[in-house]
Amino acid sequence: MRVGVLGAKGKVGATMVAAVEAADDLDFTAGVDAGDDLGRLTDSGTEVVIDFTHPDVVMDNLKFLIDNGIHAVVGTTGFTQERLDQVSAWVEAKPGANVLIAPNFAIGAVLTMHFARQAAPYFESVEIIELHHPHKADAPSGTAARTAKLIGEARKGLPPNPDATSTGLDGARGADVDGVPVHSVRLTGLVAHQEVLFGTQGETLTIRHDSLDRTSFVPGVLLGVREIGKHPGLTVGIESLMNLG
Amino acid sequence: MRVGVLGAKGKVGATMVAAVEAADDLDFTAGVDAGDDLGRLTDSGTEVVIDFTHPDVVMDNLKFLIDNGIHAVVGTTGFTQERLDQVSAWVEAKPGANVLIAPNFAIGAVLTMHFARQAAPYFESVEIIELHHPHKADAPSGTAARTAKLIGEARKGLPPNPDATSTGLDGARGADVDGVPVHSVRLTGLVAHQEVLFGTQGETLTIRHDSLDRTSFVPGVLLGVREIGKHPGLTVGIESLMNLG
Amino acid sequence: MRVGVLGAKGKVGATMVAAVEAADDLDFTAGVDAGDDLGRLTDSGTEVVIDFTHPDVVMDNLKFLIDNGIHAVVGTTGFTQERLDQVSAWVEAKPGANVLIAPNFAIGAVLTMHFARQAAPYFESVEIIELHHPHKADAPSGTAARTAKLIGEARKGLPPNPDATSTGLDGARGADVDGVPVHSVRLTGLVAHQEVLFGTQGETLTIRHDSLDRTSFVPGVLLGVREIGKHPGLTVGIESLMNLG
Amino acid sequence: MRVGVLGAKGKVGATMVAAVEAADDLDFTAGVDAGDDLGRLTDSGTEVVIDFTHPDVVMDNLKFLIDNGIHAVVGTTGFTQERLDQVSAWVEAKPGANVLIAPNFAIGAVLTMHFARQAAPYFESVEIIELHHPHKADAPSGTAARTAKLIGEARKGLPPNPDATSTGLDGARGADVDGVPVHSVRLTGLVAHQEVLFGTQGETLTIRHDSLDRTSFVPGVLLGVREIGKHPGLTVGIESLMNLG
Repeated sequence: MRVGVLGAKGKVGATMVAAVEAADDLDFTAGVDAGDDLGRLTDSGTEVVIDFTHPDVVMDNLKFLIDNGIHAVVGTTGFTQERLDQVSAWVEAKPGANVLIAPNFAIGAVLTMHFARQAAPYFESVEIIELHHPHKADAPSGTAARTAKLIGEARKGLPPNPDATSTGLDGARGADVDGVPVHSVRLTGLVAHQEVLFGTQGETLTIRHDSLDRTSFVPGVLLGVREIGKHPGLTVGIESLMNLG
Repeated sequence: MRVGVLGAKGKVGATMVAAVEAADDLDFTAGVDAGDDLGRLTDSGTEVVIDFTHPDVVMDNLKFLIDNGIHAVVGTTGFTQERLDQVSAWVEAKPGANVLIAPNFAIGAVLTMHFARQAAPYFESVEIIELHHPHKADAPSGTAARTAKLIGEARKGLPPNPDATSTGLDGARGADVDGVPVHSVRLTGLVAHQEVLFGTQGETLTIRHDSLDRTSFVPGVLLGVREIGKHPGLTVGIESLMNLG
Repeated sequence: MRVGVLGAKGKVGATMVAAVEAADDLDFTAGVDAGDDLGRLTDSGTEVVIDFTHPDVVMDNLKFLIDNGIHAVVGTTGFTQERLDQVSAWVEAKPGANVLIAPNFAIGAVLTMHFARQAAPYFESVEIIELHHPHKADAPSGTAARTAKLIGEARKGLPPNPDATSTGLDGARGADVDGVPVHSVRLTGLVAHQEVLFGTQGETLTIRHDSLDRTSFVPGVLLGVREIGKHPGLTVGIESLMNLG
Repeated sequence: MRVGVLGAKGKVGATMVAAVEAADDLDFTAGVDAGDDLGRLTDSGTEVVIDFTHPDVVMDNLKFLIDNGIHAVVGTTGFTQERLDQVSAWVEAKPGANVLIAPNFAIGAVLTMHFARQAAPYFESVEIIELHHPHKADAPSGTAARTAKLIGEARKGLPPNPDATSTGLDGARGADVDGVPVHSVRLTGLVAHQEVLFGTQGETLTIRHDSLDRTSFVPGVLLGVREIGKHPGLTVGIESLMNLG
């Protein structure tokens, strides 16, 4: 499979160039960055392009790729519903190029959310602990908040967590996100970690995701590259490419 | 819903009688044990029966229940393929009574296996650590061995776990079950615990199940009682009653 | 060693009678409860008495034991400084009977606090997560609050935990106890658990204590029984009997 | 405090130069590498030198530092008992320069060993799980083997771990190191982690150390730099500089 990279000189893009070169089943064709000619992708016979660029340019990139029948795996941010609708319209009008747009390529994070949503209706209690380095500005993390929302939706109509707490200190029981208590730990030495704890009579189930370095998006992007050819149209989120039925 | 219990004087049966009585949406009708008349179940208008009895009597129990249009939720052991085929034949011949037979009613254990199988193809490495009290005779545990087999099947055709171990002590790298290293910890104070660890570039995913007391089967049995009416025929395993798609 | 039990018909006392009887190196002499004659302890040649009784009677019990040269291992609550001073005065006036009074006999809990205090000055960050069943009324737990206070004392004069949190939800960062964030999880299925997390550049240290059933005080009481003979006078806390230098 | 670095151009040395420069209470004086004149250390009024060099040159370095009244904090390997005796003789003959030689500067690893040794006599069961990246050649890790040996010594004379395992697969119960089962997990995505599990009736205590990046030695070296001036003579291991009584 012949693979090119848009945003090839950015930190993430450069990591992806190296990852494609290291993969036995992938051939790296061309790296393109700001100012470079997109024609290098078509000239080199590229079949799939990885795009980690900028919201300002990603729509133009996608138009070009779709017009030229090249699949796209996109980690660039800023996709509103309006933008997703536009991309859908383009791929419908010009079949042959498939597009994957994903907000999170870390397979472990995606599976944690997927499993948490599946388990949610079957336990009386659920809480989330997320743990990060102390330079993080937001608490809870975006991932934890999103996980809590998914769990909240999956538990709609069920009784709330049992909780007899009657005396205590402010904050001890965490932040409430859609009925799910979320606890944020900030500790020097940590990177990015999340634990979803479920409990019912006599047993607990814990799903824990640890991101230990900044390259944890690589396997998910490569999964996208290898699978996108089989999924016509626009796909949002790598979970749609995974066999999770 | 009107619920009876077969094997009502056994330890598990007695726990189930108490659990049915405690549930707001369930009415306990009759407990039947060895020597008691099965007619007490029909006389009391029982709709679902929980059977934790003995391989010697369970087939007769099922024949009676199916003939009388009563659903069955069965935790009794000893179901060979031959027995399952026999039960299938009975319920097909006499629709109206549905049967659930499950080897494990602990929801956390069942979900751990389900999630482990789903995650297995997406990680380079996988190992299992199971931890139990020191009175346990087998190592690894049956649950860990079964989990490893399911993972092994899901990884068929993929490269083995990377492992550069060249010098070491016997046993350090665990037991090999279908390509999955399994480590068995035996520690006073523990009950029954299992951890499935997955790893890929820069991230790990851990699924951990803790059984903290002997009643962890209760929620799974009640789930079966509430759901079996919607699943005609024979169902094997509570995962088939759960919405895990 | 000849061992008696005061409060022998209470839940804890009865557990201790069974534990003494089960120990190869201990002989159970007499169980005494409300209304029974304390003379049964002296008559039976008891050398050490375990007291799990009530604040209303424990001082009279201790006076009797000290007067009769019998060592005491006491788990009864309600010891004010005034009471401790009184017991000290008694044992000084009548050497030969030693007394251990301990607020917590769970060895793992005691060691967690001891280790947490030792580690505290050597890490930039520290937080506590305590996890309990949902019937618990207070959050954080008394043990977690006490652990946090001990850590706070050990870190006096050191910089606070680094924390760049600038936006967030109330409660996400836990309750502040003497500069230590404490997070309280309440989950069906859990018993009593505590985790102290320390972090510094590139590494973390976690000390976790799990109480899995209600008899976790037994080994600590037996340790007290076996060691108190070697510690003249009044000893407070089982850590003083342990070789933790 | 004025601090120099020997081996300043090596990977570890360069990290230490940066760490000294970043510390408010330390002044970096001079970095010296192979071929550079040691006189740069004396000329710059250096009070403490960090040595991460090579077994071939470290003894000459130490002779020079001791002769010039400069304290040394040494992470270089290869110190036999004979070499330690030689250094002891030098510092006794020429008081004023103190020397710290440490095989492991990761505070979390050192505390894990220290705590494990302290806890060992008070639990019926103990096992070790160590988890590393899959490129590691030895299993168990050197740290895990050393921790097991320390625990084995601390449990001398006590009964072995209870273990009723009668049927099982080879390796499931780990490697035996002085009576302590050690389990080695090798997982892509991990760095270096160790867990010591203790268990007794109704409770467990777990001490876990996570090394998440290669700079986890920095805080321990800085601790050595700040404390060595107060410890005359030769000190082996940073635990001797810590207040762990």
